[in-house]
Amino acid sequence: MSEHDLAQATALREAALEHNAAWDLLESLTTEVGARLPGSPGDARAVAWAQARFEALGFDRVAAEPVAFPRWRRGDERARVVAPYPQPLAIAALGGSVGTPPGGLEAEIAHFATLEDLEAAADSSLGGRIAFVSRSMERFRDGAGYAPVVKARTDGAGVAARKGAGALLIRSVGTDRDRLPHTGMMRYPAEGARIPAAALSNPDADQLERMLGRGAPVRVTLSIHAGIDGEATSHNVIGDLLGAERPDQYVVIGCHLDSWDLGTGAIDDGAGCAITMAAAALIARLPARPRRTIRVILWANEEFGLIGAKAYFEAHRHELAGHVIGAESDFGAGRVYAFSTRVKPSALGVVDQISQILGPLGIARGDNSAGGGPDLVPWRQAGMALATLHQDGTDYFDYHHTANDTLDKVDPAALTQNVAAWAAFTYLAAQAPDDFGFDLEPSAEPPASSRSE
Amino acid sequence: MSEHDLAQATALREAALEHNAAWDLLESLTTEVGARLPGSPGDARAVAWAQARFEALGFDRVAAEPVAFPRWRRGDERARVVAPYPQPLAIAALGGSVGTPPGGLEAEIAHFATLEDLEAAADSSLGGRIAFVSRSMERFRDGAGYAPVVKARTDGAGVAARKGAGALLIRSVGTDRDRLPHTGMMRYPAEGARIPAAALSNPDADQLERMLGRGAPVRVTLSIHAGIDGEATSHNVIGDLLGAERPDQYVVIGCHLDSWDLGTGAIDDGAGCAITMAAAALIARLPARPRRTIRVILWANEEFGLIGAKAYFEAHRHELAGHVIGAESDFGAGRVYAFSTRVKPSALGVVDQISQILGPLGIARGDNSAGGGPDLVPWRQAGMALATLHQDGTDYFDYHHTANDTLDKVDPAALTQNVAAWAAFTYLAAQAPDDFGFDLEPSAEPPASSRSE
Repeated sequence: MSEHDLAQATALREAALEHNAAWDLLESLTTEVGARLPGSPGDARAVAWAQARFEALGFDRVAAEPVAFPRWRRGDERARVVAPYPQPLAIAALGGSVGTPPGGLEAEIAHFATLEDLEAAADSSLGGRIAFVSRSMERFRDGAGYAPVVKARTDGAGVAARKGAGALLIRSVGTDRDRLPHTGMMRYPAEGARIPAAALSNPDADQLERMLGRGAPVRVTLSIHAGIDGEATSHNVIGDLLGAERPDQYVVIGCHLDSWDLGTGAIDDGAGCAITMAAAALIARLPARPRRTIRVILWANEEFGLIGAKAYFEAHRHELAGHVIGAESDFGAGRVYAFSTRVKPSALGVVDQISQILGPLGIARGDNSAGGGPDLVPWRQAGMALATLHQDGTDYFDYHHTANDTLDKVDPAALTQNVAAWAAFTYLAAQAPDDFGFDLEPSAEPPASSRSE
Repeated sequence: MSEHDLAQATALREAALEHNAAWDLLESLTTEVGARLPGSPGDARAVAWAQARFEALGFDRVAAEPVAFPRWRRGDERARVVAPYPQPLAIAALGGSVGTPPGGLEAEIAHFATLEDLEAAADSSLGGRIAFVSRSMERFRDGAGYAPVVKARTDGAGVAARKGAGALLIRSVGTDRDRLPHTGMMRYPAEGARIPAAALSNPDADQLERMLGRGAPVRVTLSIHAGIDGEATSHNVIGDLLGAERPDQYVVIGCHLDSWDLGTGAIDDGAGCAITMAAAALIARLPARPRRTIRVILWANEEFGLIGAKAYFEAHRHELAGHVIGAESDFGAGRVYAFSTRVKPSALGVVDQISQILGPLGIARGDNSAGGGPDLVPWRQAGMALATLHQDGTDYFDYHHTANDTLDKVDPAALTQNVAAWAAFTYLAAQAPDDFGFDLEPSAEPPASSRSE
């Protein structure tokens, strides 16, 4: 990198710390749009919001690429212990779940400490009981507690149905102790009964465990209105700052624009959108465009399984060599503490230079096995170069996928630090003399902790 | 006090720290009974639970004195911004509120920063709008932030109706930032329209303020099912350890047994019940009963305005001289940090001695103007001697009156410290050579921070 480029990146980093542009974007998105469940009116409003914002921020080209998917809806949902200790339980249906039969269902709880314990039960042995998987999530800075428990959420209903359960309840995948259950995506296997699945808040899971610990059968009523309601179309919204020399080469940054319905999607993933839009907008205000195109993608429907990401990949895979490096911000609004990459060895010198510029922000140099973010998984599998700006997620899973995912959980100073890091990284990636490689060792999965859909 | 008494109190204090008897009681009450809204099935189960527990703990006399009151019920409740930024709002009807008309109501928000601002509006000027009072509560160790804001909750609906409002929304009286609104008692004036009243969670109040700050009218729909549903009878449950020398003289300790419906009443006020029952139970296991009777009162229906307390006072006011000193534990489960009294001057030497025993628990000597606790307000007005074991309430109003008032919010070690303090105080008060005065200067109100109904 030239001295000029490094000085420019330093100036961008410092300028980012003087502005609250990301906060303004996030405040606007969460206040004026709010929740953005894929295919909902809020989702459509978010797409319009994003297009208008990209235009207002001076992006050269704004596009909205359609993404079609089945629309899931949540209705009323209630759970109640009816014996031996009658009382309500706070639940949230998992995303994709079917509802209960009309009038709800009542059944005894069959308790399993882990999904593995449920899998070990004999097929068809549960006799219509409600399987309850109670394993709790551990707190780590990098979110490493997520992967060991999330499979009960994504795949538990299929397992429970095979064992003869009439429904599945899981302890929320979350590190808090609030009466606010964590929703999140689940999927049914192609074969087998589709049973309703919901998460209990952590205090409610504790309560159910205490009741079960007394030995007497615990009976629960569940009434869940939820299910697939037709097809919807949303959009990946794309803002480009066209490269001065290589407009056909893309430095891809972004976030996912959709959110769960319970909160306003501030940390998941409004923050990521605000950070990457604000970072690119700072670059847009420079006197000249960088060499390569900076492409900010606000992906549609990440939450139900990277639906927008897969659509973008299918539409653009023929441009693999033009996607020179990618990074998504999708781990909340905590400070960036490390910068890792996945680049060809000859590009590590440029990575060293980028790391030098990020260092004063408290960002350590990471390794060369970056995940890049959930919406870049298809590209990672295709060998694209990637970077991860690792955020402190110590409290991320206190709020993730709950009604508590609201603007007040965001620290403006941490948000600004993110923008500074992303502006410097993005600018330097777009100015780098060479590419970062685009036929890297394929890898089926990024590190588990970098995924949080 | 004799050396023997002081040594015995010290031994009780130390023994309390070795047991988790209060935790076991609180775990049982919150798990097996749960919420205890006055007049609800849970309230009745709590009365039976308390009687059985007093018997099992070896109390000499167990009584349940009836308390009648109008029963309030909560049904479904929903709020939603319909324009300009459609989205749901998390609300809880205030205790005592009427419901909305069938089908709900829709109206524009009229925003007032404080109750005083609402009071300053011209009568009948609101034209059916929804008055929104947004003042927020400050956090203090002693709960001093409560008094300045709670009047909007208790009296706001009457003021709003006089101004022509169709409903009242208040920012929750609470110090948290969770999407869990704080309910609590409200009352209507004898004259005037009765309009529905509900609290928004703090993040929802923030959201509404942000919308209002943009200048365009904000319209909200409210649908609240709530109201008075006949008369109920609950009971003050009383456990006595009969005094060896003066069974007609009572050292009154206790708590209120009822709770709000949203949580399981762990900190408000299951903890106070567990602490005082466990403290007395420790004394019950001594080889001999203390000189005076130790009376543990679990008051009924504190939450709707000290209903059980007033009933007990009416039934026992002729025994004023027999009520030698009283203290209620009703400020959560935080550690006791100070001990204050309201006694005749000649009893201050005994207070000194009690304070010496409490000192090693980290408890400072307070002043001689103790409130005694909400359910002792009628006795305070009658001149009864009182004590307060001041608890650290720094986080009390994070959970108070919300769905988050659950067992996990209680620190077992802090609970045990409370039991140690209460056991030592109660024993010494029951052994004291003289009374503490029972015709003290009347005072209309205890310090505001000692009230939290």
